[in-house]
Amino acid sequence: MRTLGIDPGTAIMGWGFIDEQSGTPTLVDCGALTTPAGLPQQERLLTLYNGLQALVQKYQPQAAAIEELFFGKNVNTAIHVGQARGVALLVLAQAQVPIYEYKPLSVKQAVAGYGGADKKQMQEMVRMTLKLPAVIKPDDAADAVAIAICHAYTAPMLQRIAETRR
Amino acid sequence: MRTLGIDPGTAIMGWGFIDEQSGTPTLVDCGALTTPAGLPQQERLLTLYNGLQALVQKYQPQAAAIEELFFGKNVNTAIHVGQARGVALLVLAQAQVPIYEYKPLSVKQAVAGYGGADKKQMQEMVRMTLKLPAVIKPDDAADAVAIAICHAYTAPMLQRIAETRR
Repeated sequence: MRTLGIDPGTAIMGWGFIDEQSGTPTLVDCGALTTPAGLPQQERLLTLYNGLQALVQKYQPQAAAIEELFFGKNVNTAIHVGQARGVALLVLAQAQVPIYEYKPLSVKQAVAGYGGADKKQMQEMVRMTLKLPAVIKPDDAADAVAIAICHAYTAPMLQRIAETRR
Repeated sequence: MRTLGIDPGTAIMGWGFIDEQSGTPTLVDCGALTTPAGLPQQERLLTLYNGLQALVQKYQPQAAAIEELFFGKNVNTAIHVGQARGVALLVLAQAQVPIYEYKPLSVKQAVAGYGGADKKQMQEMVRMTLKLPAVIKPDDAADAVAIAICHAYTAPMLQRIAETRR
């Protein structure tokens, strides 16, 4: 199963594709879409839309994972993250990619084993999980890959629960 | 000049097109795009995207006006309004419609003559300005038309300032 993880933002949108087979996730590709600060916000959103659409077409994910809630930020930041998040969800809806949302706590628990993991610990766990020589840079790409790993670990469990209930 | 005013939201997105000639604005059409509460948010955003895109193609606005800032709401609401706003800005960017943003205070001052106008007064001023037999319903459509009127009144002034500076 190929999963796209997304860490949305207007200035920088992290993305990461991972493949998962028999519980072992491997990195396909990851990076960050960036938009210049001087560009009007609608042009920035258009850049993100085109960039993300190209990535989805190239890597054909079967699922996408994104953070569910948004804590500890102010309303103005929330509006801007919301705008980028809306564009990301739109791209996925147009490509008919199912979207799964995870709380930051769930991502930390799934990737690092406990909800109190800090940014550095998370990056190191992502590196170890994917057997990479170094931590993923930039941070936004690492965050996107972490949420994709969370889904890769969680999806088989969700699948089993769904089957049990049939 | 034809202006599209937008009042963004995921459940309901108000829209209104007005024409302005020699300082007199007239209503072209207005309404609200609504999405059912049970639909996943990405499907709701896709519905808004398709609906707004069809309206922009039909009415070919030369400018669009939208509220600049977002006051007095919580972070969770801001995320959802942000998502709808992002999709609206994307549609406008794709159609190369220039976007103008106005503060709620500026909209009230332009339409009702003073920044303290309440919702009912604003709706009545919109009705009088456009010589309509009744106030516009739903509220979201009336809000969208109000911001379009604000731009119609403000744009000639911006134009004169720009010419003076040349």
